[in-house]
Amino acid sequence: MALTRRKLLGELGLLSGAGVSLAALQSLGIESPASAKATQFGLPKGSGAGKRVVVLGAGIAGLVAAYELRKAGYAVTVIEARNRFGGRVWTIRGREQVAQIDRPLQQANFGQGQYFNAGPARLPSTHHVILGYAQRLGVPLEVFVNSNQSAGWDFAGRVEPQRRMINDIRGLVGEMLAKAIDGHSLDSAMPTKELKDFREFLGAYSGLDKKGAYAATISSGFANWPGAYDRPPSAVGRLTMRQLLPSRAIGLPYFFEQIMDMQATMMQPVGGMDRIAHALFEQVKSSVVLGTPVSAIRREGDKVRIEHKGGVTRADYCVCTLPAPVLARIPSDFSPAKKAALKGVEYLKSAKVAFEAPRFWERDDHIYGGLAWTDRLNENVIYPSHGFHSPRGVIIGAYVAGWTHDDTPEAFVQLPIAEQIRISAGSIEALHPGRSRELRSPLAINWGQVRYSEGVGAVGRDFGEDKRGPAYDELCKPEGPIVFAGEHLSYVGLWQEGSALSAHEAIKLVQQMAVGQTVS
Amino acid sequence: MALTRRKLLGELGLLSGAGVSLAALQSLGIESPASAKATQFGLPKGSGAGKRVVVLGAGIAGLVAAYELRKAGYAVTVIEARNRFGGRVWTIRGREQVAQIDRPLQQANFGQGQYFNAGPARLPSTHHVILGYAQRLGVPLEVFVNSNQSAGWDFAGRVEPQRRMINDIRGLVGEMLAKAIDGHSLDSAMPTKELKDFREFLGAYSGLDKKGAYAATISSGFANWPGAYDRPPSAVGRLTMRQLLPSRAIGLPYFFEQIMDMQATMMQPVGGMDRIAHALFEQVKSSVVLGTPVSAIRREGDKVRIEHKGGVTRADYCVCTLPAPVLARIPSDFSPAKKAALKGVEYLKSAKVAFEAPRFWERDDHIYGGLAWTDRLNENVIYPSHGFHSPRGVIIGAYVAGWTHDDTPEAFVQLPIAEQIRISAGSIEALHPGRSRELRSPLAINWGQVRYSEGVGAVGRDFGEDKRGPAYDELCKPEGPIVFAGEHLSYVGLWQEGSALSAHEAIKLVQQMAVGQTVS
Repeated sequence: MALTRRKLLGELGLLSGAGVSLAALQSLGIESPASAKATQFGLPKGSGAGKRVVVLGAGIAGLVAAYELRKAGYAVTVIEARNRFGGRVWTIRGREQVAQIDRPLQQANFGQGQYFNAGPARLPSTHHVILGYAQRLGVPLEVFVNSNQSAGWDFAGRVEPQRRMINDIRGLVGEMLAKAIDGHSLDSAMPTKELKDFREFLGAYSGLDKKGAYAATISSGFANWPGAYDRPPSAVGRLTMRQLLPSRAIGLPYFFEQIMDMQATMMQPVGGMDRIAHALFEQVKSSVVLGTPVSAIRREGDKVRIEHKGGVTRADYCVCTLPAPVLARIPSDFSPAKKAALKGVEYLKSAKVAFEAPRFWERDDHIYGGLAWTDRLNENVIYPSHGFHSPRGVIIGAYVAGWTHDDTPEAFVQLPIAEQIRISAGSIEALHPGRSRELRSPLAINWGQVRYSEGVGAVGRDFGEDKRGPAYDELCKPEGPIVFAGEHLSYVGLWQEGSALSAHEAIKLVQQMAVGQTVS
Repeated sequence: MALTRRKLLGELGLLSGAGVSLAALQSLGIESPASAKATQFGLPKGSGAGKRVVVLGAGIAGLVAAYELRKAGYAVTVIEARNRFGGRVWTIRGREQVAQIDRPLQQANFGQGQYFNAGPARLPSTHHVILGYAQRLGVPLEVFVNSNQSAGWDFAGRVEPQRRMINDIRGLVGEMLAKAIDGHSLDSAMPTKELKDFREFLGAYSGLDKKGAYAATISSGFANWPGAYDRPPSAVGRLTMRQLLPSRAIGLPYFFEQIMDMQATMMQPVGGMDRIAHALFEQVKSSVVLGTPVSAIRREGDKVRIEHKGGVTRADYCVCTLPAPVLARIPSDFSPAKKAALKGVEYLKSAKVAFEAPRFWERDDHIYGGLAWTDRLNENVIYPSHGFHSPRGVIIGAYVAGWTHDDTPEAFVQLPIAEQIRISAGSIEALHPGRSRELRSPLAINWGQVRYSEGVGAVGRDFGEDKRGPAYDELCKPEGPIVFAGEHLSYVGLWQEGSALSAHEAIKLVQQMAVGQTVS
């Protein structure tokens, strides 16, 4: 869903030296993402007969847990505070009313067939537990365009197409390295023959001329685009080092599409991200009670008692998928260690702003899906990856999560909604001069203010690295018959995949308690 | 459609120094691909009334010419040798019989809804003249996945996922450069502050640790993929320089997706590439005569006389879109210079091999669209970009065009069809062990042997660079009332966009002759 700049840099080993520690591990050869076991997860049929489980939360973790538990014969009740399923998987359509804590009431105003994925919007093809549910439940998928060389980068007040930035930086890097090699500074770095072959490759890779100079290849674009007959293209000049790197803000976009969870092929369900949650919900809806906030989580002997709006639900076991900031405030019999850990978890308070508009980005600028990047506070503009050439579309004018600023989303979400919308429209105006006047139906979602979520997922200390800290370990521990799930209890944090994986682990614990057998 | 390795390297300035000459041109600032004028091309309405034009060939150039001429009021006849429209835009379905020169008759055997784009398969989003026709004529588009980090690279007998190769090479390049910078070899390359900022960026860009070492970031993949609870990921080790660059064959794949015409966002028509040609054909079909090979092209006074199967067609003007190797053999009154130029044009004889199979690449390997690369003779495997999770799909087992071998497609197409299929299946077996037995319905298209095409487009001397040579200039010249069009008469050679652009130029010449006015 979102990764902070800090988390990303951390994962790349820049902040913590994690790269080194990972490297120390022996290479075991490449394995397929997750295991076949994870994709084909299932508890033994009938193994839960006679046992009752209450699941708290009808987000992905809760729905997956309920789906798998029911298949195994458990009697399941899912208790959900909201009047909708999906949790942070929230696809807004039509004229939905949007209430947020300490924010004015907003009303969506999207046309027929339009939607806004306020939460997650992409599915990496490596996330095949969640993709496996899409497959099993017949949810059609299409490609999500996560990188578009025609999209604009707007940094330090200058807009350039991504192709020019990406290709010129590779040219600059290659030119510098060729200079060092040709100047014999790296003669001892590898054997002579290898260095010669590497240098030859570098020329092609970075588009250098025979002297090792980078001179803006056609990959960077044209001043005049190629035509027919007597209309040859003409090249653009290369950008300077300062134009390519005006500030630290621009770092991440250069390798964004190579971040593991952002790599092609990226997918989306046809019709909105909530289609997978919807398909799961359809399988378990007779077990789901919506509009029912939980008021206390109690142990009663070796069983559980959930107090909630309208009554009490008793069960043998509980799968609790509530987000940490929400769960931390619900009265419970949890251990002091669990309560302390829950209180300490920081949730990323990212924000998105959407508009509906005629597809001027396709019509005028030939941009089909993909992301624009900026050092403005809105950070990210996202074009729709579907419905190409149809009259209108939903454009994301801001996706603020710490992509280009260390101080966002905080600096953005502290602003009034109207100002967030103004900044987003201003960024679109810079990318598409004269077009912001075509923007309609603005809608701003500040996840820190979304009731029953209060953020998009766990970040910060104990959650920011490939290694997890003590709070993570504590939160994974069951409390007697109560087990926990959610993206924050996985190493695929902030993604639906993590929610599904954690649900599998949680119900394996339930199964262990119920049947006395370990499910591997 | 296809670019030879030679042409690509040429375009990157590596063979000819073209990069340098282009760089000498003044940067004029980035302009949108092609001009609004090209997208909105149209001759003045009614301006062709009373004038008769014969168009030779119902490929994209011929269909675009006919469509635009008819809109302007010309009386148009399109003469097409084949019993189908589209020319090199050839989408094979069902049980189509496939005859090729000096090749055994083949029969397609594809299931309902399956198709094989034997010719072009992708539409760069910068090609908006052809995309403009798709838009105007209501042809729905979807994304073509042109790069997939999960797809395999099979070089020197070793298969690695693309993500590992791509990210490790960037790591290696960055590590080498960091070593040079940290060793003060590049202190004079840029001002100290810039160098410091550049070095900091390089660490993030290439995933280096604090000491400047590259240690395989998570972008390269995992030995154990991340799970939930107590299942952290473990890293793969970095590949060696020799594993990354085992031979020259592997060069192009590293920057393939950054080649101008291969850059994201790439598109395809829903249902097969011929859907755009089909939509154009639907507009002009009352003017089109199929199954009618041309036997002579004659001038008669200031008019033209086309001799063809079943008779003669006379017209005021002719738009000739026939491929050079075909046209070179048709008797005509062309000038000696034109005839000599036609004879000298080399056409790229690329080949494709397709199979239909259960989607084991999605089921087992989570590969959704994209390309696998290999130094085997088949060069390229292409996975379908649509119908994800449906039971079966058409997989391209070979796309041979000189991507990884300087001696292909020649070395491949000289082999018997059965051997071409065997090599392709063997490559798929290497990428997906045990799965080649699921391949069905092989079909091999050798474009050099496709009658009325004899190749996919002009390459070689005079066509291999951004600058065109004398033969190109000669072929663009009209012969009295006869004007010429086709991808080979454009700077977007081997693409439908070039065909459409050239058709525009050709009919502007017709208009000039007919009305005495220049169309800009």
